[in-house]
Amino acid sequence: MPATINRRVLLKSRPVGEPKPTDFEIVEAPTPRPADGEILCRTIWLSLDPYMRGRMNDAKSYSPPVEIGGHMVGGTVSEVVDSRHPAFQPGDIVLGYGGRQSYHVAKAGATPGPFGPLKLDPKAAPISTALGVLGMPGMTAYVGLLDFGQPKPGETVVVSAAAGAVGSAVGQIAKIKGCRAVGVAGAPEKCEYVVKELGFDACVSYRAPDLFAALKDACPKGIDVYFDNVGGDVLKTVLRQINLFGRIPLCGHVSQYNATELPAGPNLGVVVGNRVTIRGFIVSDHADRLPDFRRDGTAWLKAGRLKYREDIAEGLENAPRAFIGMLRGQNVGKQLVKVGAADPTRG
Amino acid sequence: MPATINRRVLLKSRPVGEPKPTDFEIVEAPTPRPADGEILCRTIWLSLDPYMRGRMNDAKSYSPPVEIGGHMVGGTVSEVVDSRHPAFQPGDIVLGYGGRQSYHVAKAGATPGPFGPLKLDPKAAPISTALGVLGMPGMTAYVGLLDFGQPKPGETVVVSAAAGAVGSAVGQIAKIKGCRAVGVAGAPEKCEYVVKELGFDACVSYRAPDLFAALKDACPKGIDVYFDNVGGDVLKTVLRQINLFGRIPLCGHVSQYNATELPAGPNLGVVVGNRVTIRGFIVSDHADRLPDFRRDGTAWLKAGRLKYREDIAEGLENAPRAFIGMLRGQNVGKQLVKVGAADPTRG
Repeated sequence: MPATINRRVLLKSRPVGEPKPTDFEIVEAPTPRPADGEILCRTIWLSLDPYMRGRMNDAKSYSPPVEIGGHMVGGTVSEVVDSRHPAFQPGDIVLGYGGRQSYHVAKAGATPGPFGPLKLDPKAAPISTALGVLGMPGMTAYVGLLDFGQPKPGETVVVSAAAGAVGSAVGQIAKIKGCRAVGVAGAPEKCEYVVKELGFDACVSYRAPDLFAALKDACPKGIDVYFDNVGGDVLKTVLRQINLFGRIPLCGHVSQYNATELPAGPNLGVVVGNRVTIRGFIVSDHADRLPDFRRDGTAWLKAGRLKYREDIAEGLENAPRAFIGMLRGQNVGKQLVKVGAADPTRG
Repeated sequence: MPATINRRVLLKSRPVGEPKPTDFEIVEAPTPRPADGEILCRTIWLSLDPYMRGRMNDAKSYSPPVEIGGHMVGGTVSEVVDSRHPAFQPGDIVLGYGGRQSYHVAKAGATPGPFGPLKLDPKAAPISTALGVLGMPGMTAYVGLLDFGQPKPGETVVVSAAAGAVGSAVGQIAKIKGCRAVGVAGAPEKCEYVVKELGFDACVSYRAPDLFAALKDACPKGIDVYFDNVGGDVLKTVLRQINLFGRIPLCGHVSQYNATELPAGPNLGVVVGNRVTIRGFIVSDHADRLPDFRRDGTAWLKAGRLKYREDIAEGLENAPRAFIGMLRGQNVGKQLVKVGAADPTRG
């Protein structure tokens, strides 16, 4: 039986610049009860992702903002603890969008909605991967690189935030497709991880005294694809080395998520001369690619061609701190919060 | 028989910033003689285009720079005055790439190369249109708008340099495709021309005290396609009003062609959130679309649906001044130089 108390992380105030722990508030509320056709889910894993920073602003974006006093959104992997839908049984593991709380109720339709609930098979892969390498970040890498980056064997693919959940998948898929994969990351240990563990050909620190020269060394034949999720100076520097008909899938601008004023961007003259395509995308528009991604991603994972790391914060009370750290780039791999219940796929 | 003197405009010095008349030099040289398979052409019309500014710099671009002492490049419509190729006769009118000179020799292959010589039919359309509305500028508008802008009926298309050779065609093709066409231009008389003569729905001056508000008034449903050939502030302002899945074909950056340092560009955060595609292109990559363009362009011209103006400088000696003026935006419509020989399609 579920506990009667639901712990929730609420947005207390809209951050100015970098979020502070005091912008969040943890409250206790009664555990909700499922109505007919609904299931009650107890959170095992909570996903933390950069896009959530955007939801904290009172600004028009591709999704509405979180209200002050509302609970922070987020993908979750949960255990079903009560079901009023015939297709779900207590003990089932589901992917959903429960947000930063220990329990949530989800409406279970005949087909899962864009945010679930989707029943997971704990035998197929560790269930936490449904939030990472086999989930939204992995699919962002897959769609962005393959559909918009269109890498050809022998080309050079550069990816920023290379040690993160999306970036680490981008580089490995680039290698699978026969490309030279070059990461950009911050700390030396991230660069080392990306090259030694993930098999990238090179990784450059954006803190290098001469980023242009470092990137040039790592990309002797120029850059054909730049998968960008940070924007800022790295994008400017890459544009100075982009090849003819280069492609730049753009899925985030994390370098400015905490900015109070939007900085200027790169000069786009080279985009004309070199016939470059810059393509902004949001993975949720591309649900039609989900079956392909699941098939390929699962196969690559099993074959050891797609590796991943998880950076795990323990307990919902540590979610705000882990989230702030992630925006600073302190995580390596997928940032998760272990919220509470046991994970049947781990010891 | 051809005159024995060929007048040529040479590049005397590389301009710093805006070109000066003294950066050019007019010299007289012997008229060249055609070898076997070649034709001698006497220039009637010379095209002046913004891209030529780039060729004056000693910088890597999509085409090599003009050498100091070399003659300025450019598209030409000429009369054949001597032929050593069976397919061409004296009196034929040809489109070519003779540059800023009164005579040039062209190698006539079985099929015309990317720069001709291509025999024109003076009965089909005024021969000067082969450099403008039915030539490279018109085809730039056609390919950029249709292939990369992909306008759908009811959408709003904005085009910069709207009174220029490319921009005026973009807006009219947008209207033909059922779109709202909004121009951006400088002088009030250009805006008036674009709306009253060319049938754009609105035209905004980039000198407006509040460009954002003026554009907003002209585009109440936001902007779906922005055909850009100037870059700079207009691009920044448009990006603040771009709709979801907006498309931005980029074929020039004339606002910075005279810049000695590249200015910063627009912040690209919105490109992610609104899933915008920015696509740089050069029309010469898309020769496969030439038959389609010729068919549609000629039909639209005959039906009065594609109007144009020409801004004509008289005499090769006025080419430098007209070129400098064009870069300042002083021309309306296609900038041409009437070099000398008679045009059989004009009185």
